[in-house]
Amino acid sequence: MRKREEMALITLPAIRRAAVCGGTHGNELTGVYLVPELERQRREKGDCIWPVPVTTVLSNPRAVKECKRYVDKDLNRCFTSAILSSPVTDTTPYEVRRAQELNALLGPKGTKDAADLICDLHNTTANMGLTVISYSYTDWVALHVYKHLQEKITNVPVRLILLNIPISDAYSLESVARHGISLEVGPQPHGVVRADIFDIMKEGVDVVLDWIKTFNSGKLIEGGEVDAFMFEKSVDYPRDPEARKPLAVIHPQLQDQDFCVLKRGDPLFLTFSGETVRYDEEEQLHPFFINEAAYYEKGIAFHLARKKTLVLPSVRLKSD
Amino acid sequence: MRKREEMALITLPAIRRAAVCGGTHGNELTGVYLVPELERQRREKGDCIWPVPVTTVLSNPRAVKECKRYVDKDLNRCFTSAILSSPVTDTTPYEVRRAQELNALLGPKGTKDAADLICDLHNTTANMGLTVISYSYTDWVALHVYKHLQEKITNVPVRLILLNIPISDAYSLESVARHGISLEVGPQPHGVVRADIFDIMKEGVDVVLDWIKTFNSGKLIEGGEVDAFMFEKSVDYPRDPEARKPLAVIHPQLQDQDFCVLKRGDPLFLTFSGETVRYDEEEQLHPFFINEAAYYEKGIAFHLARKKTLVLPSVRLKSD
Repeated sequence: MRKREEMALITLPAIRRAAVCGGTHGNELTGVYLVPELERQRREKGDCIWPVPVTTVLSNPRAVKECKRYVDKDLNRCFTSAILSSPVTDTTPYEVRRAQELNALLGPKGTKDAADLICDLHNTTANMGLTVISYSYTDWVALHVYKHLQEKITNVPVRLILLNIPISDAYSLESVARHGISLEVGPQPHGVVRADIFDIMKEGVDVVLDWIKTFNSGKLIEGGEVDAFMFEKSVDYPRDPEARKPLAVIHPQLQDQDFCVLKRGDPLFLTFSGETVRYDEEEQLHPFFINEAAYYEKGIAFHLARKKTLVLPSVRLKSD
Repeated sequence: MRKREEMALITLPAIRRAAVCGGTHGNELTGVYLVPELERQRREKGDCIWPVPVTTVLSNPRAVKECKRYVDKDLNRCFTSAILSSPVTDTTPYEVRRAQELNALLGPKGTKDAADLICDLHNTTANMGLTVISYSYTDWVALHVYKHLQEKITNVPVRLILLNIPISDAYSLESVARHGISLEVGPQPHGVVRADIFDIMKEGVDVVLDWIKTFNSGKLIEGGEVDAFMFEKSVDYPRDPEARKPLAVIHPQLQDQDFCVLKRGDPLFLTFSGETVRYDEEEQLHPFFINEAAYYEKGIAFHLARKKTLVLPSVRLKSD
């Protein structure tokens, strides 16, 4: 048995300002519909429904209007420090301008003025249940929020992906905040709202806000262990070397099996001529974002992750 | 028990020229991938693999390239006699030009030069299994092809929708041929290829070609009864009267239940504030295309159909 390490206690400043963002990808409709619904609730019942001021944002309104992922460029790849500080000219893509606007509203990234927590809402066509994506394995707020989601949401698998990229290179919207998470819920076709997926996301946002309330109240939040999937690499479809067209589809035995363990010999792809392409690595890794529609143009059939157990310290509010 | 009517025998001319079309909607990827795969098979094994010359067409190459439904206008609404004969000017939408090109290639619609059979390949985000869509309840070729599909394909529900529109007003690609069917397979997100859905479509096309082979051989094809869903009307989402935004989503009890029977009081929608909107009609009808992504912009939450049993005569090749 694994020896249980003694848990540390870490004190952290209060979460004073949070943001919930939807429509960062304009055709991922759960967030596009949930953000106005949160705003409707606030109009009806007042700010007091939330434990802290929550900025609600429809991140890419032009893409939302056209019901497409983006207009000129994937907005959720525009939040690196380099792009956020690049000069704006007449030819600057719409999403780069919009990223800089959002950075002014919710950041600036890496400064003390930045929002304490951004929760960005996404959908995937992959069978990923509720997946939390975050950047760092030492961001105790993000990791404790994930732990709370996993404890509270029991009708769907809840998992954590860590990208482990330095914050300046982190490219997605939530990296603008001091602590950022994105919530991915699927499977759902882009351009569709499903009631079941909407409910999971709504519950997810409620649980995030509930964690903030508990934490801000000064109560001790116990540490413990959580499993994380550490991003390792992306795998493309087998392609025709000249025309670059895919020669295969995700194997039916792999389709919908996100986060399963891949062992040498397991099927990955089925070519149109009927051959099975198999996993050929020594190390057992875990695939995710399997057959995500938005990744066809990026040359990604799925990502692979290494599973790792993280030990979280207990956390409590730092007294002023 | 229903009295079995005596079946007539009808003789019909041979099917001499068929067409299989994919990418009529550029983001419905099964057809986009299956058409080149059929072409690859023909290159490898020769024309003799098919019982008649088959024209294979990628209908909307510009939309396929951009992986969207259409560029300017829904191509699959452009095949009415009025649009096909409209003059082309500088401002004519791309899809209208393309419809006229396809009409020259596969038609002209309503003439003796038109292809005998067009099979147009579509996907839907709705849980519709393999659905055959055709126009007329007296098109014995289309109806017998459907009957053959229903007999041969057993691992997924196979159903028939009849639109029952006069052929000159028929708006979709297959209406260009003397006999037209479209094959809808789902559920599949647009912009994605799933191996299971691809297999169903491939088998569907094989069965259609197999029917042509049997029919052209002169063998008697027995009549019988088939159930058809006759299009009745479309139902929109409950909307905000001013902003026209949807106030509800498909009810979780209706989602994925395409072709079920709706009785008064059955749930249709769930509003964001938690109320259930119920079916309120006397007549029991059948919903289909429930929560199809492409229909959000058309103001359609689902269609309703009346179920009807059709009696097909036996058919045989007319001797020359």
